[in-house]
Amino acid sequence: MSDTIKLAEYLFARLKQLGIGAVHGVPGDFNLTLLDYVEPAGLQWVGNANELNAGYAADGYARIKGYSALITTFGVGELSAINAIAGAYAERAAVVHIVGTPDRPTQDERRQVHHTFNDGEFGRFAQMAVSVTVAQVDLKDPRTSPELIDYTLRQCMMHSRPVYIQVPVDMVSVPVQAYPLKTQLNYALVQPTASRDEIIGKVLERIYEAETPAILVDGETRSCGIVELVQRLVEVTKWPSWTTGFGWGLLDETTPNVHGIYRGRFDTPAVHEFVQSSDLVLFFGPHISTTNSYVKTSVPKPKAGICISHTEIKIGEQIYRDIPARLVITQLLEKLDRSKIKAYTPSTDLSRPQPQSYSEALKDQPITQALFWPMTSKILKEGDIILGETGSAGHGCRDMPLPKHARTFVPVTWLSIGYMVGAAQGAALAQREMIAAGYNGIQSARTILFIGDGSFQMSAQELGTIIRHNLNVTVVLINNDGYTIERVIHGLKQGYNDIATWRYLQAPAFFGAKEDTFTAKVETLGELHNLLETEQFTKAEGFKMVEVIMDREDVPEGPLAWLLQNQLKKQK
Amino acid sequence: MSDTIKLAEYLFARLKQLGIGAVHGVPGDFNLTLLDYVEPAGLQWVGNANELNAGYAADGYARIKGYSALITTFGVGELSAINAIAGAYAERAAVVHIVGTPDRPTQDERRQVHHTFNDGEFGRFAQMAVSVTVAQVDLKDPRTSPELIDYTLRQCMMHSRPVYIQVPVDMVSVPVQAYPLKTQLNYALVQPTASRDEIIGKVLERIYEAETPAILVDGETRSCGIVELVQRLVEVTKWPSWTTGFGWGLLDETTPNVHGIYRGRFDTPAVHEFVQSSDLVLFFGPHISTTNSYVKTSVPKPKAGICISHTEIKIGEQIYRDIPARLVITQLLEKLDRSKIKAYTPSTDLSRPQPQSYSEALKDQPITQALFWPMTSKILKEGDIILGETGSAGHGCRDMPLPKHARTFVPVTWLSIGYMVGAAQGAALAQREMIAAGYNGIQSARTILFIGDGSFQMSAQELGTIIRHNLNVTVVLINNDGYTIERVIHGLKQGYNDIATWRYLQAPAFFGAKEDTFTAKVETLGELHNLLETEQFTKAEGFKMVEVIMDREDVPEGPLAWLLQNQLKKQK
Repeated sequence: MSDTIKLAEYLFARLKQLGIGAVHGVPGDFNLTLLDYVEPAGLQWVGNANELNAGYAADGYARIKGYSALITTFGVGELSAINAIAGAYAERAAVVHIVGTPDRPTQDERRQVHHTFNDGEFGRFAQMAVSVTVAQVDLKDPRTSPELIDYTLRQCMMHSRPVYIQVPVDMVSVPVQAYPLKTQLNYALVQPTASRDEIIGKVLERIYEAETPAILVDGETRSCGIVELVQRLVEVTKWPSWTTGFGWGLLDETTPNVHGIYRGRFDTPAVHEFVQSSDLVLFFGPHISTTNSYVKTSVPKPKAGICISHTEIKIGEQIYRDIPARLVITQLLEKLDRSKIKAYTPSTDLSRPQPQSYSEALKDQPITQALFWPMTSKILKEGDIILGETGSAGHGCRDMPLPKHARTFVPVTWLSIGYMVGAAQGAALAQREMIAAGYNGIQSARTILFIGDGSFQMSAQELGTIIRHNLNVTVVLINNDGYTIERVIHGLKQGYNDIATWRYLQAPAFFGAKEDTFTAKVETLGELHNLLETEQFTKAEGFKMVEVIMDREDVPEGPLAWLLQNQLKKQK
Repeated sequence: MSDTIKLAEYLFARLKQLGIGAVHGVPGDFNLTLLDYVEPAGLQWVGNANELNAGYAADGYARIKGYSALITTFGVGELSAINAIAGAYAERAAVVHIVGTPDRPTQDERRQVHHTFNDGEFGRFAQMAVSVTVAQVDLKDPRTSPELIDYTLRQCMMHSRPVYIQVPVDMVSVPVQAYPLKTQLNYALVQPTASRDEIIGKVLERIYEAETPAILVDGETRSCGIVELVQRLVEVTKWPSWTTGFGWGLLDETTPNVHGIYRGRFDTPAVHEFVQSSDLVLFFGPHISTTNSYVKTSVPKPKAGICISHTEIKIGEQIYRDIPARLVITQLLEKLDRSKIKAYTPSTDLSRPQPQSYSEALKDQPITQALFWPMTSKILKEGDIILGETGSAGHGCRDMPLPKHARTFVPVTWLSIGYMVGAAQGAALAQREMIAAGYNGIQSARTILFIGDGSFQMSAQELGTIIRHNLNVTVVLINNDGYTIERVIHGLKQGYNDIATWRYLQAPAFFGAKEDTFTAKVETLGELHNLLETEQFTKAEGFKMVEVIMDREDVPEGPLAWLLQNQLKKQK
């Protein structure tokens, strides 16, 4: 390795080291020279239709592969993406947002150039980024740039949250010291403190004492980097285990003691009572927004809960700070004396309720949320990624049992509708890269996007990117004539919850898919049944799209049905 | 009028008073109850496909009608729109951005709800708005809300820039004092100071002395509210007059002494020399970004220029502050002694160069930028709105002479590609409202959007809104196979300037247009010629779309051609 390297080469070499294989974004005149270095660095350039979608896609890619990169241009580009970056912050997706900015002379001389407010001020957009990223740097000095890049990326790794890097046009090819690249980026776990053994001892004590323990796995388990370790604990203890919506897919649902998503007061009385009366719930990666906790009803009782978070552990009401989740679970697995765990079999049936099932007699009936999800679950295969966009899809899809190595996206906290079209692109690309690298020996898998018509309209153009990159994406568009999720919140019959009427199945052709791309529209249960038997639809290759007609006031059981009941009561 | 009124009613009544007839935006659960009051207030609800496009549309509407309103939801919605708001700030479009926020108890108790970072912090998005709006209020107290609304709207009026109003869900229907509504909102001009007569005197003196004066009208002439007065001055003085790109359409180009856009060093030598050697250039509403001033070369020489801006006048190098443009022009028109203006006829021919013209012999030739614009100009009619998106369209369209009462949108400073699809929707709606109200006796007119393929992909879904509202929009899509404007800046042959291949003419059908919607694709000059003779295309009713194939390295004369030459030289 030579002593110096161009700044862009340094940056992209670091991204490669993080396992990033593709860079999302949109070209703009302040980032073009930077883009010259993407493919020579061995990274794929995705080229999204717009920056918000690019940000969504980068987020989706990061949640599957760990890290992602997004390149936008100063002002117009970065602001278009900022909602996606905020979502990545809220839900801990590690997106490296790189912004190409005007060259240093332009900034120093406060020139009145485009993409500014024509007032010579270049700092205000970076200031906005402070609120939605965990580290921000402006690479204006070759001497400090490698260190600043490394600092930023370490913050991204530690927090699993977005960071922000500005690269002025005239900095792209300046020579910088190359030697730091010889060392992979890493970060120190918090130093074990004197109390570490005491804390682990307390947890073990609780584990050995527990009569009816349970495990609950939330979505930050992924960003804590402990998914496999938690799965091992679930297998070792054989305790009844659930995930939250955010954590869905992080546990292998084919494990006998894994029971899917725990839904708090919207769950079966047996499950709800079981979890809430457990004397110990090991709660990994908690992310307790109202929307991710069934309005807080799926949160374990404080006395029973041991919450293992990024850098702290909460035992009952006592918080111990600066102890990383990875250390806790590693220690637990190491020190656990299985013989001391009390054997127990839950006295109640914790399995999910049997859903309605399809029979030939129903074939002319309209498709209902109640039947759609269980029927459709049969198409899921090992390694699939399932996205259920905010709305009825994001709740209904939870009724599908997951195959091994499945990953999911459901509404968690940010809930920006339209997110999942972009996220599907990013996730599918990450999935393809992982399968190519031998992911669990899976030969092929697909990314299945379940999305409502209103959400689809927000970011539909990203189908063009999915098609252009030949990604294995299946779009299942639920056409229920507008924003059903808004209707059940307020304005059931109001015009503002209506949307434009599109001819959805023309999307593949419009966005450039091959003429023989599979599309289908289903309105009855019989048509749905036949679709699910059609190999062209169920095979795991290529892009395809189906439109499913459902009633605008039909929602899945659970919180949405409860909201709908409230609306209907109000109308009376 | 009763003593109290609901807060939402108050707000919307004020919007009505500003002449706003339609509200743009997207529903979201924190704004739904607010939306209940839109239509009862006599305002149309537009309902856009996404918030960025809604922001663009509100901007377009404001530039035509004066003011506009945009409603989004907390976090996800407002951040999606923030790039549009920034553009409105940069180019002075008066958009009232209203954000529905969580109810006060949720905020006060720092509840961990959706659309937040799950940390109980509700202030950070409003903080971002500070950078892109001229006033921000959070309506949390019924006692102060009317005053805060009025304050905010006055700021919007004064600066012709966006403002930001937060309405918590539980504030929507609280009773507030109604009496301020009896007084229309207004704002004081800066008080005439002792020096006013002196300043006006100096300007008059310069006017009477001038041997070869000229007038230059820039885009902030509109936001200064002096368009008609400046036109009168142009007619009274008969001096050679031009606009900038931003000011294009503000002067009536059928006036004999109005010569279209002055292009600085990219103009004909005769025009450039004339303006630069004028001993007086009255420069109204200057907005001197590099992109709006042909890299500063269209700015009058400081010694010759008198710049009349929002609140100041610059005579030569001397700035006089706190004197509003409206006062200056009113005084000038009042005090001007026409007999003292020196009669003069410019010795050079200032008319635009004759463009290439079409002949039958060219019919099989590909369509070039050089021929496309002059040929297409024949379809323009009185009252039309022409949008030329950033890129080759935004430069080429300037070669079209404008009919009376035309308005235009071309790249000015913000240059966010994709903007003009949304802006076309907003502008067309404003145009329809104005025509219905008897605008210059025009019976019908249309909004014509010239846009490149790359820009179109950014925000294509807003065609759905255009179609849904039956707007008279004609989309002329210039398909030149990717981001041509980026190619001529850098990366002429680079893959990152390529985009997905769409089947563009399927857009109308996909986005829900009637089956018989006119579409056409033209690749040769002969086909273009025939299209321009086709009444189905040229008539001013309804939505239509054509695709024009041009070469990816063909750009209009002017700055883009100059950039292209630089690229080609570098390649050698």
